[in-house]
Amino acid sequence: MEGLKKLIKNDAQSKIILIVLDGVGDLPVKDSKTPLELAKTPNLDNLASRSATGLHIPVDYGITPGSGPGHLGIFGYEPLKYEIGRGILEAVGVGLEVKDTDVAIRGNFATVKYENGLPIVIDRRAGRIPTEENKRLIKYLSENIKKIDEAEVILCSGKEHRFSLILRFPYKLSHFFEKINDTDPQSTEKPPLLPTGENPEAEKVALIARKFIEEAAKLLKNEPKANYVLLRGFSVKPALEPFPEKFGLKSACIAVYPMYKGLARLVGMDLITFEGESIDAEVKTLKEAWQDYDFFFVHIKKTDSYGEDGNYEGKISVIEEFDRHFLEIVSLNFNVLAITGDHSTPCIMKSHSWHPVPVLINSPYCLGGLSLRLTERECLKGELGIFPSFKLMQLLLAHAGRLTKYGA
Amino acid sequence: MEGLKKLIKNDAQSKIILIVLDGVGDLPVKDSKTPLELAKTPNLDNLASRSATGLHIPVDYGITPGSGPGHLGIFGYEPLKYEIGRGILEAVGVGLEVKDTDVAIRGNFATVKYENGLPIVIDRRAGRIPTEENKRLIKYLSENIKKIDEAEVILCSGKEHRFSLILRFPYKLSHFFEKINDTDPQSTEKPPLLPTGENPEAEKVALIARKFIEEAAKLLKNEPKANYVLLRGFSVKPALEPFPEKFGLKSACIAVYPMYKGLARLVGMDLITFEGESIDAEVKTLKEAWQDYDFFFVHIKKTDSYGEDGNYEGKISVIEEFDRHFLEIVSLNFNVLAITGDHSTPCIMKSHSWHPVPVLINSPYCLGGLSLRLTERECLKGELGIFPSFKLMQLLLAHAGRLTKYGA
Repeated sequence: MEGLKKLIKNDAQSKIILIVLDGVGDLPVKDSKTPLELAKTPNLDNLASRSATGLHIPVDYGITPGSGPGHLGIFGYEPLKYEIGRGILEAVGVGLEVKDTDVAIRGNFATVKYENGLPIVIDRRAGRIPTEENKRLIKYLSENIKKIDEAEVILCSGKEHRFSLILRFPYKLSHFFEKINDTDPQSTEKPPLLPTGENPEAEKVALIARKFIEEAAKLLKNEPKANYVLLRGFSVKPALEPFPEKFGLKSACIAVYPMYKGLARLVGMDLITFEGESIDAEVKTLKEAWQDYDFFFVHIKKTDSYGEDGNYEGKISVIEEFDRHFLEIVSLNFNVLAITGDHSTPCIMKSHSWHPVPVLINSPYCLGGLSLRLTERECLKGELGIFPSFKLMQLLLAHAGRLTKYGA
Repeated sequence: MEGLKKLIKNDAQSKIILIVLDGVGDLPVKDSKTPLELAKTPNLDNLASRSATGLHIPVDYGITPGSGPGHLGIFGYEPLKYEIGRGILEAVGVGLEVKDTDVAIRGNFATVKYENGLPIVIDRRAGRIPTEENKRLIKYLSENIKKIDEAEVILCSGKEHRFSLILRFPYKLSHFFEKINDTDPQSTEKPPLLPTGENPEAEKVALIARKFIEEAAKLLKNEPKANYVLLRGFSVKPALEPFPEKFGLKSACIAVYPMYKGLARLVGMDLITFEGESIDAEVKTLKEAWQDYDFFFVHIKKTDSYGEDGNYEGKISVIEEFDRHFLEIVSLNFNVLAITGDHSTPCIMKSHSWHPVPVLINSPYCLGGLSLRLTERECLKGELGIFPSFKLMQLLLAHAGRLTKYGA
């Protein structure tokens, strides 16, 4: 909502926990039931029956969100209004810190042959070289290309043939906004495209990118497979009002995977580092950091991973594991506890989907008594109805007593 | 959604059937039940329990749609954004093909007396002359007025005193947009208004319309009742992106009534012609055309007609007739089957109404198990919730696997 900021109470002391079970929404997998319906979750059930429930639509009716739009929505930013460029998402996904003065680019190692000195792409993914090979090459490139013109060059390996490239400028680019074409010709037996900028500022970046490609090609020329680089998704950080200011919340992220930590950093949350990767480790971290923040975003990844694999038993087991840790979370002295997903990942589709995502909000100010469980079908009966995901934060603030009245 | 087009997969092969039972939504008529609730529909019930269900709002809360906005919505065009002029709707309703270079106008035969040569309206509807009389007069006018200045004149009878007039120009009018006033003075004992254009292009059209009115008055001067014409709803074809391009679907319309065939043509669907007017004939046509299209809009009119008559038994019988043909439809190898109405036509109101319309979407990617039947009350329990009608097409595309992910 426009003007929400005027309603935010700056002196509120209440604490909000938002737990995101990535891709938790699903479709029937067995006996016409979904993983959430099949999972045994006595602790969660108990809370659901005393909470406000509903479902949220991540982007729009029928629209399947990527991880970027999925999280932007639950963080309160309208996903159709704010876009996260592919280069930024890749950088964030490999764990790079992205600054306001950066242009982030998604890179592929590729294989080219030369015809009269002209490179011709023969494999756009360099035979999907092993990640270890990628790491060796990125180390070599990093040591030899540190700066091009005024831009600092930052490189980081991704998986197989993929890497992330950041061109860090000494100032913020103000007219950039993804105005440089991808260099990947999208098929083989063609020369790579030259990066070209659509405006003078983008052209300056494009020229630096050309130089990077040339230097990388020289350094890689004796590699049997990865002898060239293709660049895609040139992008800058989206112009988002930072989450802590937008909602008046000192905010922390507890997550394991770089992508989600990166998304939280993009919107300005603090990252809490911790040992281990289990739900147990995340809950322990939440308890330890309890005094330091107003808002905790806790991300649990494995529900989505099992969904993508079509492994519904795996997905059920993660949900049940979460339920076993639930009493510990509930014992914290929170004012609002919300549990949801960023999107659905139905096991039968092995991919993200558009289906609305169950959500539960527990606070002293709920109607409750409508849903017996946190499931797709039970939440349809709930008091929140079906609503756009970017409205969730308003609801959390309201339930936390952090919003004043609108109008007299 | 803005930008939907970027998400459409161009190589998808899936098939979608959209069946519109015109005005099917209703209110209680007997034993507190609606016609959909009173109808015996075993085949439809069986499908409903395995489908995604909900209700759609045609225009906005409390707003009753005409046939134009009702269909624009389910065709995926926001009815409050795209308006179909009255003249266009009248032309389409009498079965005229409307071209991009046409100005379409709704005409009334009227009765005038002359005072000092000035016409004074004494009956705005010429005593609702019989339709046969109308046909005779239109034939006579058509034979005598073929062209005015650069505009070809096309006339077609409607019911009673109504007719449709098209002024067909040799080029597209670019600044027109319904800028000519109606000539009907809206009460008797007043002279008809002169058509006047609000901009130079509209004025050019208005002058041609004046000449048409003068010539028609001369030709009709000896008629006892229909001795004058009033013109209303000057309009051009709405600037809609054609449905097949907008949604990437080779699209066909199977309908009996000119209005609905015309609306489908307006958005660029192909019309399939066939013998007969029964649901049986429509289903047979659907089967025959099956290989040729991705998307089928099947329109069944009689539910609305009986609603307008307040005849709930008639409405129930049409719903039951549809159910008997249902197994034939279900036996087609579709990917998505949707059944709904374009609006409600409650028998107790004998008119269109604003009430949300039940909708069912069947595909392999439904939660299902929530509504036992396709009725107003059962669909309220469904997974689609209550949504704007113009979002329906997004949902159909998603369920047909025709949309890629939004964002990375």
